[in-house]
Amino acid sequence: MKSTPRRLVIVGGGIGGTAVAKRLANDPAFEVTLLDRQNHFVFQPLLYQVATAALGSPDIAVPIRFMLRKARNVRVVRAEVTKVRTGDRIVETSVGEFPYDVLVLAAGVETSYFSRPDWERNAPSLKSLADALRVRERVLAAFERAEVTTDPAEHARELTFVVVGGGPTGVELAGAIAELAQDALPRDFRHADPSEAHVVLVEAGPRLVPMFHENLSARAVKDLAERGIEVRLGAMVTEITECGVWLGDEFIAAANVIWAAGVKSSPLGTDLPVELDRMGRVKVEPDCSIPGCPDVFVIGDQAHFRPPGYEDALPAVGGVALQQGQHVARLLRDELRGRPRKPFRYFDRGQMATIVRHRAVVEVRKLRLAGEIAWWMWLAVHIVFLAGFRNRVAVAMHWIWTYATLQRGSRLIVRGESGVHPPPPPEAPR
Amino acid sequence: MKSTPRRLVIVGGGIGGTAVAKRLANDPAFEVTLLDRQNHFVFQPLLYQVATAALGSPDIAVPIRFMLRKARNVRVVRAEVTKVRTGDRIVETSVGEFPYDVLVLAAGVETSYFSRPDWERNAPSLKSLADALRVRERVLAAFERAEVTTDPAEHARELTFVVVGGGPTGVELAGAIAELAQDALPRDFRHADPSEAHVVLVEAGPRLVPMFHENLSARAVKDLAERGIEVRLGAMVTEITECGVWLGDEFIAAANVIWAAGVKSSPLGTDLPVELDRMGRVKVEPDCSIPGCPDVFVIGDQAHFRPPGYEDALPAVGGVALQQGQHVARLLRDELRGRPRKPFRYFDRGQMATIVRHRAVVEVRKLRLAGEIAWWMWLAVHIVFLAGFRNRVAVAMHWIWTYATLQRGSRLIVRGESGVHPPPPPEAPR
Repeated sequence: MKSTPRRLVIVGGGIGGTAVAKRLANDPAFEVTLLDRQNHFVFQPLLYQVATAALGSPDIAVPIRFMLRKARNVRVVRAEVTKVRTGDRIVETSVGEFPYDVLVLAAGVETSYFSRPDWERNAPSLKSLADALRVRERVLAAFERAEVTTDPAEHARELTFVVVGGGPTGVELAGAIAELAQDALPRDFRHADPSEAHVVLVEAGPRLVPMFHENLSARAVKDLAERGIEVRLGAMVTEITECGVWLGDEFIAAANVIWAAGVKSSPLGTDLPVELDRMGRVKVEPDCSIPGCPDVFVIGDQAHFRPPGYEDALPAVGGVALQQGQHVARLLRDELRGRPRKPFRYFDRGQMATIVRHRAVVEVRKLRLAGEIAWWMWLAVHIVFLAGFRNRVAVAMHWIWTYATLQRGSRLIVRGESGVHPPPPPEAPR
Repeated sequence: MKSTPRRLVIVGGGIGGTAVAKRLANDPAFEVTLLDRQNHFVFQPLLYQVATAALGSPDIAVPIRFMLRKARNVRVVRAEVTKVRTGDRIVETSVGEFPYDVLVLAAGVETSYFSRPDWERNAPSLKSLADALRVRERVLAAFERAEVTTDPAEHARELTFVVVGGGPTGVELAGAIAELAQDALPRDFRHADPSEAHVVLVEAGPRLVPMFHENLSARAVKDLAERGIEVRLGAMVTEITECGVWLGDEFIAAANVIWAAGVKSSPLGTDLPVELDRMGRVKVEPDCSIPGCPDVFVIGDQAHFRPPGYEDALPAVGGVALQQGQHVARLLRDELRGRPRKPFRYFDRGQMATIVRHRAVVEVRKLRLAGEIAWWMWLAVHIVFLAGFRNRVAVAMHWIWTYATLQRGSRLIVRGESGVHPPPPPEAPR
């Protein structure tokens, strides 16, 4: 007797959501619908390289439906999810309602400007390809404007870059902007000297990359300083204007401010009948389901998962999302065979962040590395992760591949917003 | 005795403008300023491949200042030219005035919707990278919407693509959209069948690619028809709405209309005290200068150059722009040595256009080729032309290159406008 497949709806095509879909690929017991507002999956760790022009956007993204093309029981739908109704077991979206038997929320996080959403206009963030292209265009346009500015103060302001937030993204971005300015651009300009660019990294807390051991945090400060980047620890941003950044009473005149300071969970968590943490993340049970709704799971960055004996929730990193996605898929299969649910266990494979060229930090349990070797490890790991992508090998290779496999590499829908930064006002700040 | 260098201002960083600058690179007799509103040079023949997701935008573009980084006497300025005052020998721009001793206008052409600029909203064109990304996003979004549409008429409308204009761009675009739909996408969708996409190529004149021999025009129709593309010759578009295209009394319901029908010259020609042709191109003297202003030259697509004995002006192709740019540079150097000006002579190296995969047309004087061999010639020629670009070889190669040369490959400022096409209205057309 063939039973009706269970309708599984997955919200979010990031690492967690696609992991569930991949693990249930072609399993006739499940009819899977994956919803995402974007048509593409983005390899987030390299967004900062798109923002600093080292990579093009197609290099770090693939269409979600292309990733899952062989999973015939998985349907990918480009839609904005507007509401989750757990009572009716329905997900409402911009293209209609999707009923489910099992729901997996893996909608991730978005940028938070805390109580100041108006800062977004002058301080773009870096969560999507559109963000990365916007940052790239602003950064490059600043050098173009510096080339034609005759006023020395304005020239200095155009070439001042303030990165807010000392986590991995902020550190990587500050380093990459300094490299762009010092290594890539100088020969191309005649009046402006890009190597005079001033990069300031502002962090409210006492140290950079706080998820690493404090020795590595200190090392990051040193490596950045050697590249000429000014690191400001314990510095709280109090205002961001078109003209620059205020740190309390101190003003840094800067045409380029980039926000890498805060994230908050997808607002979909508020539709669930459960407790959220301070960041809006959903507090989940040991099996990743939510209290009272065993058929609703929340995984990845959107979930607050506190393993027994831990003081804090698991960090918002790709490894957690991947393993939780795999866990939920396995659990759903096991359940059909009458096996009891197992709790999720996280296997920590360590963490790494690049600082500048030839400098990175790596921490795997008790092993801590910094400097050149760590950087090569970072490169190797990220090339390996990226190798899963069908990433292009220049135009000749594009063509060979396109004409041999009949596939296309750049099928990305990146929302615009990449407009050029408006010309700065001539007035002095405030 | 060292004389003051001549101030040469070049407007436009396309093939013509950059050819002048390259030929005068590091010549101390010239102080060159090249003005362009974009920061990058685009290899136009491959724009349609960006629009159809075969290539990413960084693959076909390079920053102009990077192209000219070794020419120390050339300054590249990103600026919009607003007015040319030949009386005062001044070019007005968005970033200030530039006085000149010699002026070269190479500002090219822009899209013309003839008397219907309002058509632009529903029928984007293909002249810049921003255009190409906009077309790409609209085309891809149409398939996404078709996947979730339950209404059969709306489904058919979403998958109908009308390309207006039967020149090389229109032909190439129609062929590439059919290939995308038939070859690349089918496995990725569950409800929509992209291979059912209907591509219509509309041309008002009696034949496609009219600059080629009529046998090749006929061959193009045949090659397109074999790919399932409907070619409508002698069909005049009378209206374009959100819902589709009117050809007189006939309506084609189509969510995707792309305009490849008309161009007009840059409006800067109207600032000159000279005669323009019907397309707004500047009628130039045999040496490419304008009548009465021997120090003002107009070259490339912006110029109307009629060689002695010709009935018509030279075509708007890259070869003419390149050779005219080289001619003007040589003429300016010769003049400093007291040599008389020579008239420009065009050496026609022939023309080629691709139709679909394995099908192209090539015409070099009396030699005419079509089909597979022509297509391989097209590929070879375009790879050779592109090889001059620093085009990426996937991420690993990106990195090797980035970290070895300290350069960055994707420094492009592409203006936004890549927003998703608004959802179609539910009403029937008209």
